[in-house]
Amino acid sequence: MVIKPQYKLWTPGPVAVPRAYLKALDRELVYHREELFGKLLSAVVKRLQQIFVTNQPVYVLTSSGTGAMEAAVANLVSPGDRVIVTHAGKFGERWREINLRFGAYVDELARPYGEAIPPEELERKLKSNDATKCVFATMTETSTGVTNDIRAFGEICYRLNRILIVDAIAGLGVDELQMDAWHVDVVIGGSQKGFACPPGLAFIALSEKAWAQVEKCKNSRYYFDLRQYKKFAEKGQTPWTPAISLFYALDIALTRMTRRGIKKIWQEKAELASFVRRELEKRGYTLFPQRPSNALTVIRMPEGMDGTKIVDYCKQVRKVLLSNGQAELRGKIVRIGHMAPVTKAEMTRVLRYFDEACRRLSRRTV
Amino acid sequence: MVIKPQYKLWTPGPVAVPRAYLKALDRELVYHREELFGKLLSAVVKRLQQIFVTNQPVYVLTSSGTGAMEAAVANLVSPGDRVIVTHAGKFGERWREINLRFGAYVDELARPYGEAIPPEELERKLKSNDATKCVFATMTETSTGVTNDIRAFGEICYRLNRILIVDAIAGLGVDELQMDAWHVDVVIGGSQKGFACPPGLAFIALSEKAWAQVEKCKNSRYYFDLRQYKKFAEKGQTPWTPAISLFYALDIALTRMTRRGIKKIWQEKAELASFVRRELEKRGYTLFPQRPSNALTVIRMPEGMDGTKIVDYCKQVRKVLLSNGQAELRGKIVRIGHMAPVTKAEMTRVLRYFDEACRRLSRRTV
Repeated sequence: MVIKPQYKLWTPGPVAVPRAYLKALDRELVYHREELFGKLLSAVVKRLQQIFVTNQPVYVLTSSGTGAMEAAVANLVSPGDRVIVTHAGKFGERWREINLRFGAYVDELARPYGEAIPPEELERKLKSNDATKCVFATMTETSTGVTNDIRAFGEICYRLNRILIVDAIAGLGVDELQMDAWHVDVVIGGSQKGFACPPGLAFIALSEKAWAQVEKCKNSRYYFDLRQYKKFAEKGQTPWTPAISLFYALDIALTRMTRRGIKKIWQEKAELASFVRRELEKRGYTLFPQRPSNALTVIRMPEGMDGTKIVDYCKQVRKVLLSNGQAELRGKIVRIGHMAPVTKAEMTRVLRYFDEACRRLSRRTV
Repeated sequence: MVIKPQYKLWTPGPVAVPRAYLKALDRELVYHREELFGKLLSAVVKRLQQIFVTNQPVYVLTSSGTGAMEAAVANLVSPGDRVIVTHAGKFGERWREINLRFGAYVDELARPYGEAIPPEELERKLKSNDATKCVFATMTETSTGVTNDIRAFGEICYRLNRILIVDAIAGLGVDELQMDAWHVDVVIGGSQKGFACPPGLAFIALSEKAWAQVEKCKNSRYYFDLRQYKKFAEKGQTPWTPAISLFYALDIALTRMTRRGIKKIWQEKAELASFVRRELEKRGYTLFPQRPSNALTVIRMPEGMDGTKIVDYCKQVRKVLLSNGQAELRGKIVRIGHMAPVTKAEMTRVLRYFDEACRRLSRRTV
């Protein structure tokens, strides 16, 4: 069956993939144990380091971002370890689930959906938890549109000698994050968000402090064993057969991104996001997140207005796919992803569609 | 950097991907939580069932085949369990490694590289191991070119009430395998072998007996938790974001394969493989495997002839990439993959190149 989506993705990942990246997918495969793949891998890694702003090697896994999250837990947390998980949304909760599955005692620092985690609360919690080595956090919580103050988290964890592990999947390459300078020990990313590539590749980089912990870790791991990734990286390879075609698209995306420069991209994305927020507020809409990310905009539905219907209208009538809220937020918020390379004109059009949907549907329900 | 491989893959996976499959990769992404993806997934699963010859659902993981191997172990083997691992090559040994990592006591039934595992030995071992529930086997051992008698293994394990888990990655869709009729409890496959798709997707199907074991299993798993795959399959989804683009290629490959019919493909592949073996033997070459697979042909290098140089010659001069032996077999064997859709004419050309390389290089060393 030939699948032809009748809409353009404005979801907060996967996002619409630029034509040039899609075109790159159809190249013949290079063999993954050949020197030529090694060159491709090393070019990709070098550019990923610029996006992570780190001198540490970045490892590319063939999996979704969740696979890289599991890699972090399985390589850093031993059964019976105490960990702190900060969460205020669906993806923060995923850190809790994975940790529980891998045998950790989880101490939670939770806030209601839509809020950010106050760094001072993290500090307080750490000071009363001497036995806790690992702290899990979410940079950009896609389920609520919040971005956490990772810089402050990093400063605290560094000062108190803890290992900070950050799910940066949804915000990497969009929201500012400086892995080394901010003392973030583990950063995780995925191909289908700020990189605007098809899903299927995940990224992970570790500080030396984190690597020392990996060597001591006693959890079961094989496919996601980072020691294997490290070993094979030395010969320009991945331990298991990688999704070669997806590397072709990633390579182009990274070339464009690094040519532009990550600082410039952060700035442009910040400008775009505040433009979106301004436009929405001008039209009387309320934003949901307390500390909004630049990767997506999350709008709180006015009383009596069903977000599900708004998303449906935009999809059916205007052929753009926005995202509904998940679980208890279903119908209560609408999420628009703008982590991909998008112009202000495209953005304006999508906002007009959203506004049109709200007006038409509110008229109907009155 | 634009990677343009200067050779055609004749490696035993990844294999050269037909142009039409590559072309399918560049389609716009469908959103993986949308009904349209559900349709694609269900079409793919229905056709995979025909290739597996099973009524059980097949789950598609975003990972290499090794990920599906880990899924089998992590979902079926609890720490402290006794398992039997049969092996006579690198991929059989991988079953041992994964089982050890996940806390199993491994009882090995090993044969030298190039040999198959005698089913009667497996039966003997099982009869003296009452506590062993799971038996791990390799259908097509890519490192040696051997195919094991999975039908006999299935009969034995069924009779003795054990769970038979088969790595069929390299042979699925090429060497005959009838999951249900042969009583194979778990079958694992990968996109980049007999399906001739790019790597990045892996497949796994389980019998009801195996599912009952999954429910009891106490190992750590999250990304590869098959209970999640089962749950999400009910709504036409995968638990984590899948490598959507790769599904497009797989869909075309499966459409072609099922249109042709799996029995016909097995027969054609068997004919092609015996043609290759005949041609080689006619020219005086010796085959390495005792019980050769139809997915690849492995040639034992004559005394004094270095397989590494043969592979190099074919790559440099004739632009075809064959495979060397791995580890202790390096230089001692040459492996040619023919699991992809290839014609007899293409095959003949590759064999001529191989023969040419052997003649020229032996002349040089004389």
